[in-house]
Amino acid sequence: MADERKLRRVAGIAAVTALFERAPETVTRLMLSEEMKQAANPFCLELTKARKQFRLASQAELTRIAGTPMHGGIVALAEPRPVRPFDLGEAQRWARTQAPLLMLDGVSNPHNLGAIARTAAFFGIERIVLSDHPQQAMPSDASARVAEGGLEIIEVYRAHRFADVLLRLKPHYRIVASALERGFPVDQVKLDDRPLAILVGNEETGLGKATLDAAETIVTIPGSGAVQSLNVASATAILIHTLIRRR
Amino acid sequence: MADERKLRRVAGIAAVTALFERAPETVTRLMLSEEMKQAANPFCLELTKARKQFRLASQAELTRIAGTPMHGGIVALAEPRPVRPFDLGEAQRWARTQAPLLMLDGVSNPHNLGAIARTAAFFGIERIVLSDHPQQAMPSDASARVAEGGLEIIEVYRAHRFADVLLRLKPHYRIVASALERGFPVDQVKLDDRPLAILVGNEETGLGKATLDAAETIVTIPGSGAVQSLNVASATAILIHTLIRRR
Repeated sequence: MADERKLRRVAGIAAVTALFERAPETVTRLMLSEEMKQAANPFCLELTKARKQFRLASQAELTRIAGTPMHGGIVALAEPRPVRPFDLGEAQRWARTQAPLLMLDGVSNPHNLGAIARTAAFFGIERIVLSDHPQQAMPSDASARVAEGGLEIIEVYRAHRFADVLLRLKPHYRIVASALERGFPVDQVKLDDRPLAILVGNEETGLGKATLDAAETIVTIPGSGAVQSLNVASATAILIHTLIRRR
Repeated sequence: MADERKLRRVAGIAAVTALFERAPETVTRLMLSEEMKQAANPFCLELTKARKQFRLASQAELTRIAGTPMHGGIVALAEPRPVRPFDLGEAQRWARTQAPLLMLDGVSNPHNLGAIARTAAFFGIERIVLSDHPQQAMPSDASARVAEGGLEIIEVYRAHRFADVLLRLKPHYRIVASALERGFPVDQVKLDDRPLAILVGNEETGLGKATLDAAETIVTIPGSGAVQSLNVASATAILIHTLIRRR
């Protein structure tokens, strides 16, 4: 039996559904409340066939297993999903399919990572590349919960020597980086037929100079000045919607 | 001395700064960590002039006072900010200034309310109208913290008999409601010179039939179908940005 401490806790019906759709073989166990029996019935059948366990659990027990009261009455234990090393040759092949990339360089709050993944999945982005920024959050139980299934669908990669990676991606992607100010208004930027790589930075400090220098276009979301900034997940939602729809 | 249990806890430097800019007379006390002394210096001077208290506090004490560890080293106690009753005659006068309205009908999570208020303030929306939907969240310490000052800037109103209010607003505002599906793509809707009233509903169930029926235009954010929906705060960010910029 696997060491349970190393397993992921996937909580909430949306995330558990995405988990069973994408990687049912990684599920080791399922716990659910009485109220979720009907919704979880297909998963229970699947586990029975695979000779794996499911059982009813109290709200208190679900909270303990999930590590949060926000479990929505259902928690699966599953083997960790790997964060894959980013490979430039592979990325060049992706570019030929026109699939956009989302690249995060220092998004530190796991809830923001989860919210961004949910939005990216909603708009059909299939791959997120995380940089080697020391504050960059990695996928976790908390981010997966907020992602509502988004992190079960999206492939997550980790790139080292990030500014260098960006320079090498430049011939293949239109690299669009977001900045708090002085960028081109995001809804007016002219796009061409290259696939997009959308770049977002840290909640407090934004993108660093090396990253901004490596980008082809810097965009800004124009505000009124009444409050200084948008939340990074809200900003990323606006960037993805606006850029992907313009393209 | 006021009953402290009735006071708001305003935490974080952005929210405290907005509080001192907008309603310094409502502040009754300020507690801060050693690290925040310099940033809070102007507020401390202002409190001294007004013969009010400020003092240093430990992280543990700030957590206890704020009711959360997410206090950013500074917590102000302040008198509650009123949620004003919505008045139709007043709203007709607002319409003449072309100022847009954001109307929430059932947004139940205080964090979502706060995130939406931050975005609305960023884009210069000055007024949010909350409906009498039983699940609609009211401003709270938690929502104000997430709003990062947005809820200190925005005037919040409460409207009873909401569908009726919408029908009476219709001659004065272009009422645009969001729905998960079957609406007009938000970035293609044609707008005229009337001020916008943007309508958003509950996290799980969206807007109810009476509200949708009262709207002039129903819009949808087109997705890929990979995950069912956007988070309501991300969706609202996209709606506000797209509609306000198109107008």
